[in-house]
Amino acid sequence: MSAERRYTLTLSCPDRVGIVAAVSGLIAQHQGWIVEANHHADSQAKRFFMRQEIRADSLPFDVASLRERFAPIAATFAMDWHIHDSAVKKRVVILVSKQEHCLYDLLARWQSKELDIEIPCVISNHETFRGLVEWHGIPFHHVPVMPDNKDAACAEVQRLFETCRGDTMVLARYMQILSPDLCRAYPGRILNIHHSFLPSFAGAKPYHQAHARGVKLIGATCHYVTEALDQGPIIEQDVIRIDHSDSPEDMVRYGKDIEKTVLARGLRFHLENRVLAHGNKTVVFR
Amino acid sequence: MSAERRYTLTLSCPDRVGIVAAVSGLIAQHQGWIVEANHHADSQAKRFFMRQEIRADSLPFDVASLRERFAPIAATFAMDWHIHDSAVKKRVVILVSKQEHCLYDLLARWQSKELDIEIPCVISNHETFRGLVEWHGIPFHHVPVMPDNKDAACAEVQRLFETCRGDTMVLARYMQILSPDLCRAYPGRILNIHHSFLPSFAGAKPYHQAHARGVKLIGATCHYVTEALDQGPIIEQDVIRIDHSDSPEDMVRYGKDIEKTVLARGLRFHLENRVLAHGNKTVVFR
Amino acid sequence: MSAERRYTLTLSCPDRVGIVAAVSGLIAQHQGWIVEANHHADSQAKRFFMRQEIRADSLPFDVASLRERFAPIAATFAMDWHIHDSAVKKRVVILVSKQEHCLYDLLARWQSKELDIEIPCVISNHETFRGLVEWHGIPFHHVPVMPDNKDAACAEVQRLFETCRGDTMVLARYMQILSPDLCRAYPGRILNIHHSFLPSFAGAKPYHQAHARGVKLIGATCHYVTEALDQGPIIEQDVIRIDHSDSPEDMVRYGKDIEKTVLARGLRFHLENRVLAHGNKTVVFR
Amino acid sequence: MSAERRYTLTLSCPDRVGIVAAVSGLIAQHQGWIVEANHHADSQAKRFFMRQEIRADSLPFDVASLRERFAPIAATFAMDWHIHDSAVKKRVVILVSKQEHCLYDLLARWQSKELDIEIPCVISNHETFRGLVEWHGIPFHHVPVMPDNKDAACAEVQRLFETCRGDTMVLARYMQILSPDLCRAYPGRILNIHHSFLPSFAGAKPYHQAHARGVKLIGATCHYVTEALDQGPIIEQDVIRIDHSDSPEDMVRYGKDIEKTVLARGLRFHLENRVLAHGNKTVVFR
Repeated sequence: MSAERRYTLTLSCPDRVGIVAAVSGLIAQHQGWIVEANHHADSQAKRFFMRQEIRADSLPFDVASLRERFAPIAATFAMDWHIHDSAVKKRVVILVSKQEHCLYDLLARWQSKELDIEIPCVISNHETFRGLVEWHGIPFHHVPVMPDNKDAACAEVQRLFETCRGDTMVLARYMQILSPDLCRAYPGRILNIHHSFLPSFAGAKPYHQAHARGVKLIGATCHYVTEALDQGPIIEQDVIRIDHSDSPEDMVRYGKDIEKTVLARGLRFHLENRVLAHGNKTVVFR
Repeated sequence: MSAERRYTLTLSCPDRVGIVAAVSGLIAQHQGWIVEANHHADSQAKRFFMRQEIRADSLPFDVASLRERFAPIAATFAMDWHIHDSAVKKRVVILVSKQEHCLYDLLARWQSKELDIEIPCVISNHETFRGLVEWHGIPFHHVPVMPDNKDAACAEVQRLFETCRGDTMVLARYMQILSPDLCRAYPGRILNIHHSFLPSFAGAKPYHQAHARGVKLIGATCHYVTEALDQGPIIEQDVIRIDHSDSPEDMVRYGKDIEKTVLARGLRFHLENRVLAHGNKTVVFR
Repeated sequence: MSAERRYTLTLSCPDRVGIVAAVSGLIAQHQGWIVEANHHADSQAKRFFMRQEIRADSLPFDVASLRERFAPIAATFAMDWHIHDSAVKKRVVILVSKQEHCLYDLLARWQSKELDIEIPCVISNHETFRGLVEWHGIPFHHVPVMPDNKDAACAEVQRLFETCRGDTMVLARYMQILSPDLCRAYPGRILNIHHSFLPSFAGAKPYHQAHARGVKLIGATCHYVTEALDQGPIIEQDVIRIDHSDSPEDMVRYGKDIEKTVLARGLRFHLENRVLAHGNKTVVFR
Repeated sequence: MSAERRYTLTLSCPDRVGIVAAVSGLIAQHQGWIVEANHHADSQAKRFFMRQEIRADSLPFDVASLRERFAPIAATFAMDWHIHDSAVKKRVVILVSKQEHCLYDLLARWQSKELDIEIPCVISNHETFRGLVEWHGIPFHHVPVMPDNKDAACAEVQRLFETCRGDTMVLARYMQILSPDLCRAYPGRILNIHHSFLPSFAGAKPYHQAHARGVKLIGATCHYVTEALDQGPIIEQDVIRIDHSDSPEDMVRYGKDIEKTVLARGLRFHLENRVLAHGNKTVVFR
């Protein structure tokens, strides 16, 4: 998210000799300047993961041409790959309910351009934050969720997401379970913040579960949404110390600070193409 | 664990008005000097917890007399209570298997008198650490554990613990499940270090479970042993950050640093009478 | 900051026998229900510190009467003391410059009543956040600061603070050094957030100083403002891990997450009367 | 430190296009299997840093031959470079005084082969740990340090280090300042653990300095020793939370847990050739 334009290549493929040489050879051949490079070989899955950030102005051609030249290498090594151009801003749709902390936090980062993204709209099942969102010049859509219209509500969320050409959906304490259809529609593109250190305390009221168990630390988890509730690939986690004197309400309050920070970090990793999911796990090139 | 002799009063009782006034009134009446005081009211359990550390030389009578004078107050408020005299050293029996880190750590703290305790013996199901333990002048007992003699082995551990008049038993990565009889014999007196951030990853091979789930932090938990495996009251926990590049073996290695630190902290809280268990939870007055 | 009305007694005095007994005796005599109690004896300064939270409805008289009854005890022990009534909301004036993170964070906490305070106004040397602040229904005052009018600007800040009857002034990355007069006017009432782990990197551009020194963690410090720049009593601190790949600009970005969290925690401790300053240090009853 | 034999290439050079391609091209040409790879470009210093771990058995020649083939590339790019063969164990000389914690910790890691090193000897200015060290089968040298023989003592330390062919010297709370001659003799090869979060509280009695300043976290720093006291390149740091109730003696005790962990981590990074010093800073490829 530097001001400098960059192309970010991410890939994964079966691990074998020569991947780095082939990729870096292509880039070097055209005098490409690599700003940041990360590799990871998963010895269990026998799979190789790579991320390269290249200064756009160091290459003598554009991103389409880079993709064209890279395709033969990708084919040779059977790569899943993607080249992102930092000049194309990601479009992030935020879903909220009635809790303020993650929304304010994301708006602050957007307002200051710390997150250099478009927010084409905010969607909520409540009207609570219409004023704040619209004051920021961002469209706000109220999609009520009732026990008997959950699937229809999710379909409406999906329609709005499509209409505004969203890339990424962020559940910023949305408090509603998405329909299986919606989960399946955007694998690796919907981020949730869960208010516990998963896999402990999945499901409802995790702070109350934590209080009942008497743990000494509580946490939060940013993960990709899959059909299995709170089971998707974990992107980022953190914890905060509590003690016996903290009520569930205190934990809710402390937890908010962890939740918003973990969500913002996880989202940033995702937006910078630092997260490569594989099966139910992630490689995060920090 | 100061060099200065102290009496430590710990108590819990149904919460009501006047407890602190009654206790502090008694101490003040005899010019007792309170060095440290902690209270906690559990509003759900409607129970009150208290710990007071008093300079022994500030009172005009001995600990037996203090107990005698305190008994009527305790009766009035239906207290569970205990007065510990720091001049009486706790006797801590350590159980180990073949992993070195917690044992070395505890021996170092004992050698330097950071832990001002007696270690009447170390018990192990392997001979691995006989030399090291005996070099420190501490008796070492080898109690082999085979699939067909587990209860007998636990009975022998109990006999040794009784014979050496142990106060506290520490499972310093003992890697064996204690028999229900042994667990029941010493409630709140057997400490275990579990190599995960409970309640996640109870049972065997928690680091491999953590690796499979793809968590971004791993942890360790010091808890009192009860019959339910890894379910006892939690005394202390901590975590350390990992990432995708860490194998289960790396996690085992990182985890050792957390395990020994968390065990040492939990043990110290226990030895200083800072831990008041109630149901399946603990109050820890740090 | 519970919904339940409470009186919070804070005091410090020369340490001697009988303080707790006298205080708790008075409260117990009137059937006062102590919700939370903390003591600290500073053995070097030979000074005793205490905080008691009492349920207002457990006492048969009002706060004025409680103060009247407490005065003789306070006199006997030469106490510095204060009784705060939670029904009286604190009035917090926020000073900002052009950085958004602490301001958005505080507004979010105020909006959700996590911080149950009045914000009578926000003061800034820039117009940047007028719209956001006024949208929240809070008056905004622009007090420009130029090299040649610093003292006059501080005088204007003080006038605004007095006019709106402020209790506490929060420098939420205000980026201006207050005049000695202003510092002296409100000891223990002006909180600053400094973007380093003090005492390292006091003064300007601490993240650049940290980058030049090659530290592996960066931090933030919430402290009371005194005339000596970045030297006042520390209320709260925290750190975050960085590495060689982080530029000063990255550190600025990471640091913002720590700054806003540390400021919010420090401010909360202050507002809940948990901070007792003594000399250049603080007792913080968490 | 895997059981698998590896060659570890570390290098730094002026940053330019083609470095990665040249290095990975050579390795790929001979079917070398890269297990781990890290790069860093320092945009201020315009310098490039790289570390590659290669499976020894994947190459058709030995380490001498690898070095020979690599030399022309190194010359082309003006590299500072080193290739380490994991079959050659590092020889680590430990210096201690009278504090036990770091020594026990390092011995435990050596005993369990977590640190797969040779310890040719331990040197101390006191006899305190002769028994423990010799029990482990490691030679122990007592080199007394008096006010009037400091330089001679350092010369004797250097003689012992040379005689036993030490690679790395570890000051495991040695509590003596090394002579300038000794510091200069082994740049980047002497590691110290300082008991503060540098640059705060350099010099003597840092915990007492920290107590006097009233900080809310204390720390430890592992750094390379240079002639300037506590000013050398920092390898690793960490902190632990304290509060007003902790005396300097409590801090000393908490600090020990941080010191030994930070020293062990820093030493491991160093032994695994993960630390590339440049000027007064380090690149640490974790």
